[in-house]
Amino acid sequence: MDGTQMPAAAAAMTARYGAGAEPKAGPWNDTLALLLAHRSVRSFKTDKPPEGTLEALVAAAQSAATSSNLQTWSVVAVDRPEVRAELAAIANGQKHIEVCPIFLVFIADTSRNSRLAAEAGTELVGMPYLESFLVSSIDAALAAQNAVVAAESLGLANVYIGALRNDVTRVAELLGLPPGAAPVFGLCIGYAQEGREGEVKPRLPQDAVLHHETYDADDAGHRAAYDPRMEDFSRRQEMAGSNWTQRVIARLGSFRALSGRDKLKEKIIALGFPLR
Amino acid sequence: MDGTQMPAAAAAMTARYGAGAEPKAGPWNDTLALLLAHRSVRSFKTDKPPEGTLEALVAAAQSAATSSNLQTWSVVAVDRPEVRAELAAIANGQKHIEVCPIFLVFIADTSRNSRLAAEAGTELVGMPYLESFLVSSIDAALAAQNAVVAAESLGLANVYIGALRNDVTRVAELLGLPPGAAPVFGLCIGYAQEGREGEVKPRLPQDAVLHHETYDADDAGHRAAYDPRMEDFSRRQEMAGSNWTQRVIARLGSFRALSGRDKLKEKIIALGFPLR
Repeated sequence: MDGTQMPAAAAAMTARYGAGAEPKAGPWNDTLALLLAHRSVRSFKTDKPPEGTLEALVAAAQSAATSSNLQTWSVVAVDRPEVRAELAAIANGQKHIEVCPIFLVFIADTSRNSRLAAEAGTELVGMPYLESFLVSSIDAALAAQNAVVAAESLGLANVYIGALRNDVTRVAELLGLPPGAAPVFGLCIGYAQEGREGEVKPRLPQDAVLHHETYDADDAGHRAAYDPRMEDFSRRQEMAGSNWTQRVIARLGSFRALSGRDKLKEKIIALGFPLR
Repeated sequence: MDGTQMPAAAAAMTARYGAGAEPKAGPWNDTLALLLAHRSVRSFKTDKPPEGTLEALVAAAQSAATSSNLQTWSVVAVDRPEVRAELAAIANGQKHIEVCPIFLVFIADTSRNSRLAAEAGTELVGMPYLESFLVSSIDAALAAQNAVVAAESLGLANVYIGALRNDVTRVAELLGLPPGAAPVFGLCIGYAQEGREGEVKPRLPQDAVLHHETYDADDAGHRAAYDPRMEDFSRRQEMAGSNWTQRVIARLGSFRALSGRDKLKEKIIALGFPLR
């Protein structure tokens, strides 16, 4: 820890948690500063990053831990404008999917392991369980987050696109996925448009998320403290001035907001994950 | 990119992919070096990291993207030796769970959102689907990976403990989890014992994992190239000298190796995720 950096640490914690809600001060360095400064960005320049950037991001992604080194994930880089346009439509019209210079689809992928077993003339009897889909989705997420950190270290903004799950069947068709491979989310990467880098979004107080020894469900006070912070944030960002409670209810309180993801289970099963 | 760093970049790529299998050279910086150097470590000193370290790691974790800002994850820091011992037993006797100074259990947690809705007198009809369990597991993974990167930037080694899923029911009991909260994995964090930092583990060739436009399932050559690299690695690390094909089949080819995770689905449902 470098004492001269502490004002930066305090400022980063205030941006993330709000004034008065900062957690206990601790060690600090440039990596923590990078991680704390994360923002999801949806306005990209079309400028391409330097040659080899995609490969560097994927090398970072492959360096993340993977359960039992099974490496049950893949990533598809999609450039074709007509495919980007259809993916944007699936994601309820998120235009940035068409604009960003790098668009990745992360895949929960047990098909590689199945090909290996088929070649060896054996059957992977441990495969058809919920566990395999969960492991491969977590593997994909760990890998993707490393790619995000790598991107941000190179000055590249990004945003995850969970809305590809609105129709995993069609995404899998577009990408030619084999059985046992399912899209879990997309990722837009590129340089942020000037002035559209956004502001660090406040999160729940740390005490609402971090528990000691056992889970403490008495968190109404933490949520009440967070609501006005999110309301202020949303006003400043020129969105509707709604608080966290209102946003959670808007997102999860209606069947319509699922955008078809109520069908995710049957579609994932059809893509070759029996989910036993 | 700093030209003087390129030998470091090349060395890091060789360590991760093997000589002759390095991807195209691209940008490089200290963050990429940190990410590429990841190793899972299972031998920890008992020395505690400085005050405020846990809070810094959780601040990094909370700074990761979270789907629709729903923040559907939590983390429980477990110190009590008797609980650590039982968690280690659940994880097939992984002693490092008892030794490491920081042990975290990451939780897929929709219970906070449910409490909010109950207080507001409304029902989250979008919740009881596979989608919610998947989102909360991915949220937990993105958060955890940020904590891992933060830890490594502070010189702290770590290893994920997926084997907590051998018995999520008992883990949930030990941590007093409310309905709608399920353990997804653990994470050991601490200083590596000298000489036990391990070696960077080679991964599949990048072309086996990164696809362009559509998925290329013709990867037998990539797997064949990787097998001897993993065999060499496992010999050097004094494990059984087995290649990747053998390891995948050992891990997934027997029902016994599931260690009870064939019951994961019914246990997750019982923990309050209907998985519709």
